[in-house]
Amino acid sequence: MSSARVWTIYPPLGLKGRFPGEDLAYQVTLQVTNSSISPKPVEPARLDSHILEQFKVLIGEQNCLTASADTDPYCREWRDKFFGKTALVLKPGSTEEVSAVMKLAYEQNCAIVPQGGNTGLVGAQTPDASGNQIILSTERLNRIRTLDADSNVAIVEAGVVLEQLQTAAEEANRLFPLALGAQGSCQIGGNLSTNAGGTSVLSYGNTRDMVLGIEVVLPDGRIMNCLRTLRKDNTGYDLKHLFIGGEGTLGVITAASLKLYPRPKDQQVAIFAVETPEKAFSLFDLARDHAGSMLTGFELMPRMGVEFTIKHAPGARDVLEAPHPWYCLLEISIGSPAVDGRALIEAIFEEAFEAGFVEDAALAETTQQAADFWRLRHGMSEVQKHEGGSIKHDISVPVSSIPAFLARALPACEEAIPGCRPVPFGHMGDGNLHFNISQPLGADREAFLARWEEINTMVHAIVVDMGGSISAEHGIGTLKRDELPAVKDPVEMDIMRQIKALFDPKGLMNPDKLIKSASSFKKDQDQ
Amino acid sequence: MSSARVWTIYPPLGLKGRFPGEDLAYQVTLQVTNSSISPKPVEPARLDSHILEQFKVLIGEQNCLTASADTDPYCREWRDKFFGKTALVLKPGSTEEVSAVMKLAYEQNCAIVPQGGNTGLVGAQTPDASGNQIILSTERLNRIRTLDADSNVAIVEAGVVLEQLQTAAEEANRLFPLALGAQGSCQIGGNLSTNAGGTSVLSYGNTRDMVLGIEVVLPDGRIMNCLRTLRKDNTGYDLKHLFIGGEGTLGVITAASLKLYPRPKDQQVAIFAVETPEKAFSLFDLARDHAGSMLTGFELMPRMGVEFTIKHAPGARDVLEAPHPWYCLLEISIGSPAVDGRALIEAIFEEAFEAGFVEDAALAETTQQAADFWRLRHGMSEVQKHEGGSIKHDISVPVSSIPAFLARALPACEEAIPGCRPVPFGHMGDGNLHFNISQPLGADREAFLARWEEINTMVHAIVVDMGGSISAEHGIGTLKRDELPAVKDPVEMDIMRQIKALFDPKGLMNPDKLIKSASSFKKDQDQ
Repeated sequence: MSSARVWTIYPPLGLKGRFPGEDLAYQVTLQVTNSSISPKPVEPARLDSHILEQFKVLIGEQNCLTASADTDPYCREWRDKFFGKTALVLKPGSTEEVSAVMKLAYEQNCAIVPQGGNTGLVGAQTPDASGNQIILSTERLNRIRTLDADSNVAIVEAGVVLEQLQTAAEEANRLFPLALGAQGSCQIGGNLSTNAGGTSVLSYGNTRDMVLGIEVVLPDGRIMNCLRTLRKDNTGYDLKHLFIGGEGTLGVITAASLKLYPRPKDQQVAIFAVETPEKAFSLFDLARDHAGSMLTGFELMPRMGVEFTIKHAPGARDVLEAPHPWYCLLEISIGSPAVDGRALIEAIFEEAFEAGFVEDAALAETTQQAADFWRLRHGMSEVQKHEGGSIKHDISVPVSSIPAFLARALPACEEAIPGCRPVPFGHMGDGNLHFNISQPLGADREAFLARWEEINTMVHAIVVDMGGSISAEHGIGTLKRDELPAVKDPVEMDIMRQIKALFDPKGLMNPDKLIKSASSFKKDQDQ
Repeated sequence: MSSARVWTIYPPLGLKGRFPGEDLAYQVTLQVTNSSISPKPVEPARLDSHILEQFKVLIGEQNCLTASADTDPYCREWRDKFFGKTALVLKPGSTEEVSAVMKLAYEQNCAIVPQGGNTGLVGAQTPDASGNQIILSTERLNRIRTLDADSNVAIVEAGVVLEQLQTAAEEANRLFPLALGAQGSCQIGGNLSTNAGGTSVLSYGNTRDMVLGIEVVLPDGRIMNCLRTLRKDNTGYDLKHLFIGGEGTLGVITAASLKLYPRPKDQQVAIFAVETPEKAFSLFDLARDHAGSMLTGFELMPRMGVEFTIKHAPGARDVLEAPHPWYCLLEISIGSPAVDGRALIEAIFEEAFEAGFVEDAALAETTQQAADFWRLRHGMSEVQKHEGGSIKHDISVPVSSIPAFLARALPACEEAIPGCRPVPFGHMGDGNLHFNISQPLGADREAFLARWEEINTMVHAIVVDMGGSISAEHGIGTLKRDELPAVKDPVEMDIMRQIKALFDPKGLMNPDKLIKSASSFKKDQDQ
């Protein structure tokens, strides 16, 4: 006589019962000693009116958007590459309100998609098509809590727009150096969650390097307060770095303490024309040797990108008389009255010209002109869409390998799609290029874009072969999620999944972004 | 009829059996869906000869020290504050050998204490008194694998001595900026595991900020290869930051890819005499304004510390004619030929003198003199032991709060122990002081040191009240482990314990360092 049973258990659990057909009563207590055993992944709940009402009670009806005219802008990314649906956009106004809605969402098995300025480029801020993922907008968490110029620290909430913080720092005669094209609308919470890069990485690092502490609401609603403002603090695991660059998959960053820096007393901006990427690297090397840590920007731009920008960006114009195949934008920031910035950048030009690295150059004479030079570079991201389809990559390689990468990747693309128009541009000083390929003139947009994955695969193979990254600064989101396991160390990938399960056992926190949630993973396996 | 049982389960597990005295056979399969369920904490195994033999087979008898004359130096910290015992010191010679010994240790339930140069100050590198914790020394992992001056990256193994890397960088005309008193013997693996600070944090950050990637052997022996050499890489959770500053409790760092920097073309070092900490901060503010990111060092020293150093450190001497209550050591590093460093530091002195911040100054005229000035500062750590007992703190507060901290902490100590001789010195520019208190002249050493905890508690209360840290750069180890939960956010502390359990479910990896291992924690609770 034998009975077989399979029990799925969620400890701690006591069992008491009776085998059917037997008269033996039994009582078993299952004691599982490891406290990390957590709730299992769940199917996200349907957002019915009963659930919506509960959220309204918590943060007020006016902060809960349900009409599709109101929610649509949150469901669509500006380039129209990613879109989804939602029955509910929440706009909590304080950390405590974020905690309250997260707690309710956790109890009710509601999936949460945190969203800042909705400027992300990999789909991490966009809900899926089910309509059941709640968007949690940080836009009302928009206070600069403190700004301490003496200690060079600001504590700001997640919804503060980057430009707002830049301005506040400037008013206190300080610099918050993060700078990127979307700075007028992107939010600090999003900058942290994506570990934004931008144009000042060379000297100031990525967003990660500017963060002293964070406040975060965990998926179960608990508030973790690590808002320290210290330059040095060796008291245990530095947990903030999991959330920075975590793309909102482990919790919602609600505030951060950020480093401020002395405001440069002078800046010099110049555009140098060079013949080849190799010469651009030689120029970089020379500029770094002359300017040291004062070299705060070194951007590469191809002629094609400059032409696109001149054609489509209002007010953009060529800065040199003759066209050249490549341009470098240099920025030098001087923090000391002991330095003559103008003499410094002129010395760089003269030496580079004599060495044959540089063909021509334009030095900005005014602040306005410096801004115009930068506009040429910043405009390059946006203008490509006016030239038809563009297959994009956001890659990095070791800094000195940029010329070698271009020497492999450009011919490969031209062979795969004859007539394609490559626009590889960006942060050469950081080893990071936006390696974008515009469609051939007159080609069919859809047919060209249909080759996105094929071209990505080809380019990323070169990147990985050179020890590079398939996402230097934009992140993974949904765009590169399925590609990630192939390019990461399997042990690292495994640990990442375990970290995700530790923080978000139910799989409700920005599901399927960055890594596939356990329930989706299981569904795939079952198929 | 009823049967009661308590089962402790380590899933996945199938049970098959028979209730005693009953004739019902049963078969139950326990299926636990959460894959993060792990082995439970174990009692570390006794190191008997059978186990020792297995390790000898893996890495050779000559790399397994068992005689106490050989193992003793590894069990004792240089200030004689921490000591333990071990039956086995392992010296693997490659990452693969580390992996092999870790795998065996995991299977055999052997506890591992990783150790670098044995210069740590909080006991994290020292085994307990049982003799059963194996020391894993990284000293034979001592290769600089690559040094790429063009990309400014070096890949080095954990056992490379810091000074060895400094020298290699210098030979390639580059700088590895980490600098601390123990640099002649501390190892890179230990620098990373403790997130070492030192004297260059002001401009270059802590060790964490110099790391691009790591290679780590996990407690179960798996190798996680994150040895990327990229400036930008946003591809998932940045796991390296858990191990950096993790004090060897989550795994063994076996190698790291580290940033190199342009070598300064000129350095200026000066000692400025100031009357008060407030004036020292004003000087700091002024120097930072003049030198910007070229200000690479700003250290505070009290007269008492200078006197101790002159008295006990060979070759150290006073640099100014008259004594002054406080001194600031300034270092300015110039990376650009466009800057006249001498003029810059003289301008700082002149303006500070006119403003009344500074009484006197000595500017180093030669490299030798600059080194002598630094020796005065570096010597200060070591000389205190010649003046009897010293109760130590390694605290940080927001940078501008250093004067306010001293104004509270100094009188408190003098009231608690009349005649005590405070030696608060260190990295003022980072908000970090080694707030040490030497015993009163002629006092009983043991009686004075018996008050360590009381004074720590008092000083740390002031630190926490000011938003500071009880361990700015030395770490937690065993020294501050039991104090940590009281000063950390409870949610953060809880997550730290879960992270520990995730990586080290058996509790075998540097047990009881940083946080109490689950088995010790349980024992405490059971008592």
